[in-house]
Amino acid sequence: MRLTTGWQSTGNSTALERVPIERRDLRDDDLAVRVDYCGVCHSDLHAIHGLVGKPTDGLVPGHEFTGTVTAVGSAVTEFAPGDRVAVGTCVDSCGVCDMCRAGQENYCLRGAVSTYGGTDRIDGTTTKGGYSREYVLRSDFAYRLPEGLEPAAAAPLMCAGITMWEPLRAAGVGPGSRVAVAGLGGLGHLGVKLAAALGAEVTVLSRSPGKAADAVSLGATGFVTEERFAEAFGRFDLILDTIPGPHDLAPLLSLLGLDGTLCVVGYPREVPVQLMNLTFGRKKLTSSGTGGRRGTAEMLAFAAEQGITADIELLPSARVEEALTRLEKGDVRYRFVLDLADLG
Amino acid sequence: MRLTTGWQSTGNSTALERVPIERRDLRDDDLAVRVDYCGVCHSDLHAIHGLVGKPTDGLVPGHEFTGTVTAVGSAVTEFAPGDRVAVGTCVDSCGVCDMCRAGQENYCLRGAVSTYGGTDRIDGTTTKGGYSREYVLRSDFAYRLPEGLEPAAAAPLMCAGITMWEPLRAAGVGPGSRVAVAGLGGLGHLGVKLAAALGAEVTVLSRSPGKAADAVSLGATGFVTEERFAEAFGRFDLILDTIPGPHDLAPLLSLLGLDGTLCVVGYPREVPVQLMNLTFGRKKLTSSGTGGRRGTAEMLAFAAEQGITADIELLPSARVEEALTRLEKGDVRYRFVLDLADLG
Repeated sequence: MRLTTGWQSTGNSTALERVPIERRDLRDDDLAVRVDYCGVCHSDLHAIHGLVGKPTDGLVPGHEFTGTVTAVGSAVTEFAPGDRVAVGTCVDSCGVCDMCRAGQENYCLRGAVSTYGGTDRIDGTTTKGGYSREYVLRSDFAYRLPEGLEPAAAAPLMCAGITMWEPLRAAGVGPGSRVAVAGLGGLGHLGVKLAAALGAEVTVLSRSPGKAADAVSLGATGFVTEERFAEAFGRFDLILDTIPGPHDLAPLLSLLGLDGTLCVVGYPREVPVQLMNLTFGRKKLTSSGTGGRRGTAEMLAFAAEQGITADIELLPSARVEEALTRLEKGDVRYRFVLDLADLG
Repeated sequence: MRLTTGWQSTGNSTALERVPIERRDLRDDDLAVRVDYCGVCHSDLHAIHGLVGKPTDGLVPGHEFTGTVTAVGSAVTEFAPGDRVAVGTCVDSCGVCDMCRAGQENYCLRGAVSTYGGTDRIDGTTTKGGYSREYVLRSDFAYRLPEGLEPAAAAPLMCAGITMWEPLRAAGVGPGSRVAVAGLGGLGHLGVKLAAALGAEVTVLSRSPGKAADAVSLGATGFVTEERFAEAFGRFDLILDTIPGPHDLAPLLSLLGLDGTLCVVGYPREVPVQLMNLTFGRKKLTSSGTGGRRGTAEMLAFAAEQGITADIELLPSARVEEALTRLEKGDVRYRFVLDLADLG
């Protein structure tokens, strides 16, 4: 057993405690990673509050991090100590089901192993996340961090980035595509950057008029507040809906053109859908969740080529409660990243 | 004013009355059509019961019919008296909006004019449908009935057929596609024929084990009842959901593979959707409604080439109440068609 340190939530509290954490001894195909930077994702809050995942006594969040390989298992040939790596929301899968074979390990039919709050496929223990100084995982689920991507700002690519990338790719977005991003937060700001870099014409839909200038600097050419939705009626091929709370989908569907797609990623719960709002224009409602190994590697390569990382506020990990509290209020432009160096 | 005869519903009653009906004098771009055969669609029942469309005092249903041109307006060059034609659910549109320019007049942003219960764009009168001996419409919305298509059995192509055709085409169905059709009625049986003719592997999902043999004779290679859904988990690229009543979408979504599409056409009302059922596998929920001029013409040409028409029960129009009553009970294999010759 290896011993490290991390930040743990107990009893739905965002006041995380600094605790010792055990990591398994390396299996043949494992890596040990010193976690350098870990993004603070809205689903960390959901998990702390018991809204997603299975209940857990001592929750260690964190599923978008970058770090440095410190040790490798005997069968690992792809990585060596000192390599810069990135890890996302999924650390193992069965490898043989239809989804795994399609390169979408995140949808593994036997259950992808979540980076925290998941169940290890070998020993059945509950996984603990990247709000810690060390992580041990199967090397297949670590990604080489491309040269040129600043490690702190790259961490959020591993959840927020890939969550935006997959629906953009699934919809075939490229030059000529008209993409809207609803909600300009951790997900949304990366959605704008990635869509614009793919060549799309990007519009931000937001309740906060104060974000108009940011939208433009991120790469959007349009900015529409809800009161002016009528002007954008029927305009978009794809809307990435990153709004984190419950909201009516009908106004967003009205902004889609023929065969347009509304992809809801911010609030994947039960919603009422008026099917007639899909009928007229043959519109599609979809959702998606992070990505598989192939898509994640592709996204990282694209981000490196285009120089895309998140806009972050970097905090020492001891200030994790402040990060979570401000995130809960939407007070961050656009992603908190914890620097784990203060864990020694 | 031209005078004809038709079947009219008053006060939500399926006991239609034989009444005289006025048709407009021909405008320059109009056709007069002697209605020979008119299909009985489930939405005729919805309209009679006031569930769709605007309330109307004397409702004359019927929006899938074939007939013979009897007169043409002065500017009509495409048709001449004696021509066999087919008419569907839409008889006019603005022609200039994005949907019309995309060839989807059925989604006209200014409102496509429904074949019955719609509002004529010129004189503002309420349209009366094909349960009548004559219909007058803009020639652009009549389709030449291809040689080789039997006129009575071809009538249902104009609503049920095109309603199945459009989502099959939108999903790019062809050889190798795995398509399921949920509900084997007027819509579903044409869905099976069209999907099979496009080269797809077709499975029927039905609550009626007695329809298994029919499913095969229509072109399906699989037949699955709800109790055995687990065996078809994740199998389909597209499900055409033609079930006419309220039903849970979750079991159908579970049958889709990665990036699969559930197209709900039988019950386009408000439904609760658990978005997580879309997230895992990046599945799409959609709906669509009949088709535009381009798609309808394409569907008719394909049907003629493949020898596809509906399986019908042909009744003299005087037995319309019997047809509606049996349709309400699901007692038809697979579409009633009225022979309007008894209206003289």
